[in-house]
Amino acid sequence: MATPPDHADAVVLVSGGLDSAVTLAAARAEGRRCAALTIDYGQRHRVELDAASRVARAQGAREVRLALDLRAIGGSALTADIAVPRSRDERHMHAAIPVTYVPARNLVFLSLAFGLAETLGASEVWIGVNAVDFSGYPDCRPAFIRAFEAAAREGTRAGASGEAIRVRTPIIDLAKPEIIRHAARLGVDLSLTHSCYDPDPVGLACGSCEACSIRRRGFEAAGLPDPTRYAPAGAAP
Amino acid sequence: MATPPDHADAVVLVSGGLDSAVTLAAARAEGRRCAALTIDYGQRHRVELDAASRVARAQGAREVRLALDLRAIGGSALTADIAVPRSRDERHMHAAIPVTYVPARNLVFLSLAFGLAETLGASEVWIGVNAVDFSGYPDCRPAFIRAFEAAAREGTRAGASGEAIRVRTPIIDLAKPEIIRHAARLGVDLSLTHSCYDPDPVGLACGSCEACSIRRRGFEAAGLPDPTRYAPAGAAP
Repeated sequence: MATPPDHADAVVLVSGGLDSAVTLAAARAEGRRCAALTIDYGQRHRVELDAASRVARAQGAREVRLALDLRAIGGSALTADIAVPRSRDERHMHAAIPVTYVPARNLVFLSLAFGLAETLGASEVWIGVNAVDFSGYPDCRPAFIRAFEAAAREGTRAGASGEAIRVRTPIIDLAKPEIIRHAARLGVDLSLTHSCYDPDPVGLACGSCEACSIRRRGFEAAGLPDPTRYAPAGAAP
Repeated sequence: MATPPDHADAVVLVSGGLDSAVTLAAARAEGRRCAALTIDYGQRHRVELDAASRVARAQGAREVRLALDLRAIGGSALTADIAVPRSRDERHMHAAIPVTYVPARNLVFLSLAFGLAETLGASEVWIGVNAVDFSGYPDCRPAFIRAFEAAAREGTRAGASGEAIRVRTPIIDLAKPEIIRHAARLGVDLSLTHSCYDPDPVGLACGSCEACSIRRRGFEAAGLPDPTRYAPAGAAP
């Protein structure tokens, strides 16, 4: 359906990746009627947006897509013309915070999710941030989430009327293998998700970028089969 | 110039209205090299965006325009198909926070400004919020601004590296006549600005909506000539 939902209990930020798919499933498992908010922020790879739609539809969430041209801001290998590092080691040669960091991304995404939550009367915003495999992003830590809730309480109609919107972060303390096992318990079809920073032209994962490496090792450590479709060149471990 | 600036000292949110024009002038008066960030969020009236360009150019700021389709969120008379109240009294008949409130707007706009500030290496974000004539918007109060700074300090690369970006709000405590007198002192050409919520087809101000009423009374109280071009029907006080 192209029409926005009139009401939702929760707004869930759905990126098309593994973490947000599990987050959506966790919200659904608590009985929430969910709006899946996907931000089209000029991702270099549109395959992420396709994955987000598949995930939302498979879990019965209403899709809301919001266009935001973050390329006007630039400053990240995920939106601008900057080479994506091939491995965590290569990243660490340069800086503690990787070039794939999008300036203020979760600040922006949570703000938009709160705006939608206000409109839909939702009392929760769910986000799949993770402080364990957090790749050095400052906006994935619990201290940020709590500070954001406080700011939103001051700056939104819901907060001003005493009905503050909460941020739910069900996987913030989980390592990748635990997230994958959690997904299996919740029945999430992870083959629908996309993690790779550098997919081939038909959307197959490269198998060697940092996102692929973390994901691949996660399935291995969880002892579960990896449903990811890797491009031939990247298939060898 | 269409190219984004490589560096700025300050990012100033410029809407095309009177308050942000004065805010930009205040930043310039302190010697800041400014990037004027205008959010194209699906305003009902494109005349606001034209005014923002005029204001930025007249003050020598580099323009950065960022497209964000807030209509996907809805919930406001400024972006959706909801009637704009004709006066403050009409608004007060309905609710303490007016229907012109855009859900989480300043939360979203400040977040985007912080992202741009990170990219440009700017240490300040200037915003023309006003807690005196604040029209009941919760995101125009000092408590929100301070809470936002704290959240951004936790959630951005700049904050994580100990170089927190500050929010500057030069007109937050000024009543409209004081803002207008301040504009005159700073040499701001207020005829370039646009405040009306309900302009006529060629962009002339209606003279009777809440924004026009506040602006018109502001010039009267300041004892300064009002350069606003009103549509004939709304010209009578």
